[in-house]
Amino acid sequence: MSRTLHQPLGGNEVPRFAGIATMLRLPHIQSTEQRRALDAAFVGIPLDIGTSLRPGTRFGPREIRAESVMIRPYNMATGAAPFDSLNVGDIGDVAINTFDLLDSVRIIEEAYDRIVEDGITPLTLGGDHTITLPILRALNKKYGKIGLVHIDAHSDVNEHMFGVKIAHGTTFRCAAEEGLLDCDRVVQIGLRAQGYTSEDFNWSRKQGFRVVQAEECWHKSLTPLMEEVRAKVGDGPVYLTFDIDGIDPAWAPGTGTPEIGGLTTIQAIEIIRGCHGLNLIGCDLVEVSPAYDTSGNTSLLGANLLYEMLCVLPGVTRR
Amino acid sequence: MSRTLHQPLGGNEVPRFAGIATMLRLPHIQSTEQRRALDAAFVGIPLDIGTSLRPGTRFGPREIRAESVMIRPYNMATGAAPFDSLNVGDIGDVAINTFDLLDSVRIIEEAYDRIVEDGITPLTLGGDHTITLPILRALNKKYGKIGLVHIDAHSDVNEHMFGVKIAHGTTFRCAAEEGLLDCDRVVQIGLRAQGYTSEDFNWSRKQGFRVVQAEECWHKSLTPLMEEVRAKVGDGPVYLTFDIDGIDPAWAPGTGTPEIGGLTTIQAIEIIRGCHGLNLIGCDLVEVSPAYDTSGNTSLLGANLLYEMLCVLPGVTRR
Amino acid sequence: MSRTLHQPLGGNEVPRFAGIATMLRLPHIQSTEQRRALDAAFVGIPLDIGTSLRPGTRFGPREIRAESVMIRPYNMATGAAPFDSLNVGDIGDVAINTFDLLDSVRIIEEAYDRIVEDGITPLTLGGDHTITLPILRALNKKYGKIGLVHIDAHSDVNEHMFGVKIAHGTTFRCAAEEGLLDCDRVVQIGLRAQGYTSEDFNWSRKQGFRVVQAEECWHKSLTPLMEEVRAKVGDGPVYLTFDIDGIDPAWAPGTGTPEIGGLTTIQAIEIIRGCHGLNLIGCDLVEVSPAYDTSGNTSLLGANLLYEMLCVLPGVTRR
Amino acid sequence: MSRTLHQPLGGNEVPRFAGIATMLRLPHIQSTEQRRALDAAFVGIPLDIGTSLRPGTRFGPREIRAESVMIRPYNMATGAAPFDSLNVGDIGDVAINTFDLLDSVRIIEEAYDRIVEDGITPLTLGGDHTITLPILRALNKKYGKIGLVHIDAHSDVNEHMFGVKIAHGTTFRCAAEEGLLDCDRVVQIGLRAQGYTSEDFNWSRKQGFRVVQAEECWHKSLTPLMEEVRAKVGDGPVYLTFDIDGIDPAWAPGTGTPEIGGLTTIQAIEIIRGCHGLNLIGCDLVEVSPAYDTSGNTSLLGANLLYEMLCVLPGVTRR
Amino acid sequence: MSRTLHQPLGGNEVPRFAGIATMLRLPHIQSTEQRRALDAAFVGIPLDIGTSLRPGTRFGPREIRAESVMIRPYNMATGAAPFDSLNVGDIGDVAINTFDLLDSVRIIEEAYDRIVEDGITPLTLGGDHTITLPILRALNKKYGKIGLVHIDAHSDVNEHMFGVKIAHGTTFRCAAEEGLLDCDRVVQIGLRAQGYTSEDFNWSRKQGFRVVQAEECWHKSLTPLMEEVRAKVGDGPVYLTFDIDGIDPAWAPGTGTPEIGGLTTIQAIEIIRGCHGLNLIGCDLVEVSPAYDTSGNTSLLGANLLYEMLCVLPGVTRR
Amino acid sequence: MSRTLHQPLGGNEVPRFAGIATMLRLPHIQSTEQRRALDAAFVGIPLDIGTSLRPGTRFGPREIRAESVMIRPYNMATGAAPFDSLNVGDIGDVAINTFDLLDSVRIIEEAYDRIVEDGITPLTLGGDHTITLPILRALNKKYGKIGLVHIDAHSDVNEHMFGVKIAHGTTFRCAAEEGLLDCDRVVQIGLRAQGYTSEDFNWSRKQGFRVVQAEECWHKSLTPLMEEVRAKVGDGPVYLTFDIDGIDPAWAPGTGTPEIGGLTTIQAIEIIRGCHGLNLIGCDLVEVSPAYDTSGNTSLLGANLLYEMLCVLPGVTRR
Repeated sequence: MSRTLHQPLGGNEVPRFAGIATMLRLPHIQSTEQRRALDAAFVGIPLDIGTSLRPGTRFGPREIRAESVMIRPYNMATGAAPFDSLNVGDIGDVAINTFDLLDSVRIIEEAYDRIVEDGITPLTLGGDHTITLPILRALNKKYGKIGLVHIDAHSDVNEHMFGVKIAHGTTFRCAAEEGLLDCDRVVQIGLRAQGYTSEDFNWSRKQGFRVVQAEECWHKSLTPLMEEVRAKVGDGPVYLTFDIDGIDPAWAPGTGTPEIGGLTTIQAIEIIRGCHGLNLIGCDLVEVSPAYDTSGNTSLLGANLLYEMLCVLPGVTRR
Repeated sequence: MSRTLHQPLGGNEVPRFAGIATMLRLPHIQSTEQRRALDAAFVGIPLDIGTSLRPGTRFGPREIRAESVMIRPYNMATGAAPFDSLNVGDIGDVAINTFDLLDSVRIIEEAYDRIVEDGITPLTLGGDHTITLPILRALNKKYGKIGLVHIDAHSDVNEHMFGVKIAHGTTFRCAAEEGLLDCDRVVQIGLRAQGYTSEDFNWSRKQGFRVVQAEECWHKSLTPLMEEVRAKVGDGPVYLTFDIDGIDPAWAPGTGTPEIGGLTTIQAIEIIRGCHGLNLIGCDLVEVSPAYDTSGNTSLLGANLLYEMLCVLPGVTRR
Repeated sequence: MSRTLHQPLGGNEVPRFAGIATMLRLPHIQSTEQRRALDAAFVGIPLDIGTSLRPGTRFGPREIRAESVMIRPYNMATGAAPFDSLNVGDIGDVAINTFDLLDSVRIIEEAYDRIVEDGITPLTLGGDHTITLPILRALNKKYGKIGLVHIDAHSDVNEHMFGVKIAHGTTFRCAAEEGLLDCDRVVQIGLRAQGYTSEDFNWSRKQGFRVVQAEECWHKSLTPLMEEVRAKVGDGPVYLTFDIDGIDPAWAPGTGTPEIGGLTTIQAIEIIRGCHGLNLIGCDLVEVSPAYDTSGNTSLLGANLLYEMLCVLPGVTRR
Repeated sequence: MSRTLHQPLGGNEVPRFAGIATMLRLPHIQSTEQRRALDAAFVGIPLDIGTSLRPGTRFGPREIRAESVMIRPYNMATGAAPFDSLNVGDIGDVAINTFDLLDSVRIIEEAYDRIVEDGITPLTLGGDHTITLPILRALNKKYGKIGLVHIDAHSDVNEHMFGVKIAHGTTFRCAAEEGLLDCDRVVQIGLRAQGYTSEDFNWSRKQGFRVVQAEECWHKSLTPLMEEVRAKVGDGPVYLTFDIDGIDPAWAPGTGTPEIGGLTTIQAIEIIRGCHGLNLIGCDLVEVSPAYDTSGNTSLLGANLLYEMLCVLPGVTRR
Repeated sequence: MSRTLHQPLGGNEVPRFAGIATMLRLPHIQSTEQRRALDAAFVGIPLDIGTSLRPGTRFGPREIRAESVMIRPYNMATGAAPFDSLNVGDIGDVAINTFDLLDSVRIIEEAYDRIVEDGITPLTLGGDHTITLPILRALNKKYGKIGLVHIDAHSDVNEHMFGVKIAHGTTFRCAAEEGLLDCDRVVQIGLRAQGYTSEDFNWSRKQGFRVVQAEECWHKSLTPLMEEVRAKVGDGPVYLTFDIDGIDPAWAPGTGTPEIGGLTTIQAIEIIRGCHGLNLIGCDLVEVSPAYDTSGNTSLLGANLLYEMLCVLPGVTRR
Repeated sequence: MSRTLHQPLGGNEVPRFAGIATMLRLPHIQSTEQRRALDAAFVGIPLDIGTSLRPGTRFGPREIRAESVMIRPYNMATGAAPFDSLNVGDIGDVAINTFDLLDSVRIIEEAYDRIVEDGITPLTLGGDHTITLPILRALNKKYGKIGLVHIDAHSDVNEHMFGVKIAHGTTFRCAAEEGLLDCDRVVQIGLRAQGYTSEDFNWSRKQGFRVVQAEECWHKSLTPLMEEVRAKVGDGPVYLTFDIDGIDPAWAPGTGTPEIGGLTTIQAIEIIRGCHGLNLIGCDLVEVSPAYDTSGNTSLLGANLLYEMLCVLPGVTRR
């Protein structure tokens, strides 16, 4: 193929601690022309006013970028060579309105309408989980009903929070009720902890979602589970949404509503690598809150998981 | 006087690190009857969705309470004996709506309407500076136009922020435009840093506010300034609003929009002690963001400044 | 049943970051009458002068309460509905004497005598492990010899520490020697690291304790072990004492004497859930030292483990 | 003037926590053409292998940029309007060789040769103080002997360190010995602490430097001192080099060799503002080490001091 | 003089971050012979069980030593050359009993009896303020009634704490009542904050102490005050005891009972340098609690103040 | 056996938080005579100028020593009694040249030449991974070609870094090319993440190294792997080099180039214990960077792993 693909800036060219920190040290794409030449793009949504406990995900995109500088191009475990295959860039952040949640939801939807128009597969750096609703709205306009691989400690299917319809804990009920999801092709992995009622996870099950509680994942590889997941979500368009609190706080302390007894980082990688072959139309990594990430590990983990997501996008070659 | 006044729980009765942390270890007042017997009360407003940079003031009230446990009853410098004079309690937090800024502003105003009705002088633990607008609205209904002693790095008189009328940087323009303030009796102390235009502080001056830029305070006691302030605000009702970012980040790192070159803690104490004799109808201490307060110093400082505010309320005896 | 049971304050009523932090947002029980209506209670013992390396557990109760605010009422994994079954409250902290370890031990014993008299099953927030001795003394007066499920990195059966008989490393030798324990119904899980002699764990074994060294737990579920444990401790009265350092420092960094190679959080949950059906007469969670808990994870974990303990108390229904 | 000047991205356009963090939210200048249109530029040198105690200044440029996002365009104290006057951009970092100090010194000199050729006044984000030597070498080729305003806790005139000639503690002896400095126009401010001999500051004095020990600055404004400084350095070309450890650790904890009893932030601002009118040919702010800057205050301070330096460059208008 | 004096290990010999950290990089003196050759010695007392709020001073000596490694031999401000004059070493820590406060007090007294016997002037690294009582007891046996320069936020003259006679808040009442002090030659500097009664500082005054409240120190050099202090304490034996909380929390966050509005580091240096010429028989620096010292500044400050104390011991030459 | 072996200072003799921190509280060996009586010694190499991302390993030895104070003499899992068998001491740090990487490599080699001459088996506290090259050079002179057990996230076989031949990422290519290694007896465990090419691990395989990628280790005990390892490395001289980043960042956050999905602490212990019976001629633990180790866990882990290494040295008895 003759077109030139963007490459991450190498550590032997400029030290990894140097320079303006973009995602994976890819070019910061600002012109329309360059943008339209992209196959996939990293985009940040620095929103945190949809959170119910600790805030701070507004700084998620900045810190994920800062920690992403160590990532090199080739995936040594899977052989994936994303930058040999796709044209990828960092298109910066969506300019949300930090004083108005509903207005931010509107702004995000419009921004993703343009991303979809430009033919870009978005890899989103959150931001709290509210952001997945407008992303799904935009993708739904192009792809119709969407399958979902959803990793999270919480089902995020509350009917409302403090009387409000749209917030970080209502996303997937809204998405289902708005008809954005193909409910028989939805899997939720990692749910746990307590509920407001003992029935809290049943709403999901009633929609046809496959609910994999964290306890079902303990002490084992999730590679076998992913076979089941791939069968469930099938060939249709699928969106991968990863709430970092699906992972146990030992690995991901920097988040707003941590829950004990969660997935391991290894299981998280297995889940994402297990999405290889799916018709992924977009991915996000949400709920990284740097102020609570005293070691930087959560941002580093987020950056790596986003890289692994890139590696399983359709069209990425393996060596 | 025969009535019994609430007393802080002493360290020789229960160790200071023990027990449920209320403000100054005062009783947590929950019944209407007890509430109506109060002269003054500490009240928290855990709001942070009005902030433009770092969030986190939603945890301000909790941490200020936690750090307040060391404070003993008698002010050794001024002789003030607040608990010999006034009946004071901790009435907990206002249940704001963390997903909707305007609805929160409404909730706060209603809560302070009740506080005013109950005859309580409120000492408020913020929360971001948005909260002072609904407090002033409620107080204005009882007291009419209010004088103001406002300590801050920023004038908070923006016309809007990101197109929004009410946020933490617009409070005092809103208050003035709504007729809540007696503009000739308003003083702003500690303003500094940069503006969007070189005229940014002139709006305040045009309203009749006395603007004391930080540079005017450098290298000196503010006790002389407070003579001028007392003359300016006179005998009418006065509200004291203290944004912790008025103080330099060396003393108050735990805040959302820190600015270098600010006031010292000593000057802050001088300002508050210099309010002795004014007709104070309420006070607040805002913008403490514990996630950025790695040493706990900012919450400790906030707790002490609130104690000093209590000590200058009308009716507090000095020994 | 017609009596009214205390319920945790819900997040849709007051935001979880708001208000005075009590354990699980339960009422702070202060009157004798309310206290006597309790079935179980959370109680803090802010002691740390029995510690041999890092101090700080005096702040354990306060931080465990602060992190407990996220916990909702229903246990999604086990179906336990503790607040539908038992009347539970937070009765605050024991006023220990922080300058005198032996006097504190006396104060604690007297406090638990009253708790036992009031018919309350105590769930204790430590404090260092010294506190379990006076608790066992008080419980022994009512229940006679007590079985024990003891999770810990250390056996805490030293004969003395620095010449002192009672300290956080001698608790279970004292308890055995005082005849408080039913030694054939004692299990110690998670012991590891180094000893002063290579015989250090043999004293326990000689008493009849089942000693499960950490290495026996590696790479596996502890659900099978708990079958053995339940058989060992039988139907008699059992006390559950959980030293947070039984868990590996990756999950529980905030403690005084951390040891590598410990249990996982998941194993900790399996142990507690595996106590379902036992005749539990009390539980404690000790050795959380917040100053070393930079992420807050240890306090959060402690709060959740205490919630799980509540869920396995006799009489708690499952849905 | 008809040319378009770069403007910082405003907070009402994109929230200040959003987007790729460049210095003062100025454009990241990458093309030669854009570069040659600049009057002044921010440039980072992420070097720390010249440090003798704590490392970490390699991350200085990144964190200074991250904290600079709050700075708005107009200086409210001096009226300076730098972006109305000069074309300013962020030209990124010098790609130093982090494994070889002397090679890095060579690389820096070459990079500044090009900056000088392009007619850009450099405002440098350090990096350790070694970097000022190659900067002075490059500037000397254009300007000849250079006057110096040097703020620091240390005189940095060691003959060698551990047998090495060039390191962060030898910069100004090397510069003097190489004939880069106009020694009669050199001022060192803030020197303090201990020496290897009691004569340590005398070498400076023998060269003709004016040495202002920290004790001479205590308890007073430095505005009068700056009159003397301006007289001393006169009309010739002057370089301003600011080691953040000149400031007391209360304001600037994030540095490698902190010394107690230093300058205040206010004195630092007075020094920089006191350079107004000098023929400044470049400035640097060195020795910010973010890993030791737990509050972020040091990076924030560094960003603000660099902004203040920009405000006193020749040609900046005041309103 | 022909005897060889111990010298600090230089940074050009071994890097300052390398090696076993002793105080000021002096030799660790272990043999009786070497010990008896000392004129002065640094000695640690890692006690914290006398503290009433935050613990942690048990780690004070270790961290003060770790931060002391940057200090070089010659005092550039005063010309003091302590290692040219006195034989100084680090004699390690007193092996206190961390489970028993009174036994620790006994152990400390015995340790200082031996120090006195060996003819060593002790410079003590605390440890909480309880330790000064047994030190004074030991010194009193040799010197009789002792004058005192006492810097502190608190007067430490409580009659008891929680019913206990000896703790960190009762030291100087005990010392006075035991007849250890020459009460007319006692000065207390920096007292502030609140009291249990409004009379709390009057007990000191009644004994004849000169009490200098913090407010008396604000905004000024303390060099003039020290003239008065020197006149007050006269030619008799004097002990200098410095509680780090005398200094404001901006400079000294790492302590157990911080109080706002305190002394500055500069004032602290002025006080110590102002003791030059007194007949100092010992000094201590207490209440550094490293777990609360997130920046390391407090330990660094403690190390420097101890160095300054060494510099004003009788017999130290100035160059 | 009649000779006296050094014993760690016990916690009942001096509290563990007290005293000068040496490794495992062993004597600090300074005399040649004492040194020559050692069988094994802990030695620090405080180097970090070979690192490519985050610095700070220069403080590794100091913090590992500080955290090692809790370790007691007898290994409860294996029965190893190292201090009953070997004469072990702490010989301090190598005085590297922190301004010159190649000169430091030379200094280290010379220091280890002397260690080898003195008949000491070195247990090294790093320092970045560059240090293993000069250690191997010195050992090679005595032992000839050396087998290697190498735990690491990275293969460290780059041909160069930024054009430099010797740095922390080139160590084992240099060692192989210099003929120091017996390549058929080399095992690398834990490699993962990304490469500059997809062939990055193949160079190792071509030399005959056994490469165990992290994925091969997931979800299982490494005890079986160690059987294979022992067979591979055989009876010849073997060196054990452990880069702490081989372990997952949840357990070891304090390091310079962390990679997700790594080994667990338990697997690390299994690896070291699995080296029992090998002809170990030296061991190191590298890349602990305390400034990034906010909990202290990484240093604590490093100290324990070094203790476990000591326990598997030839000649250590088991009880």
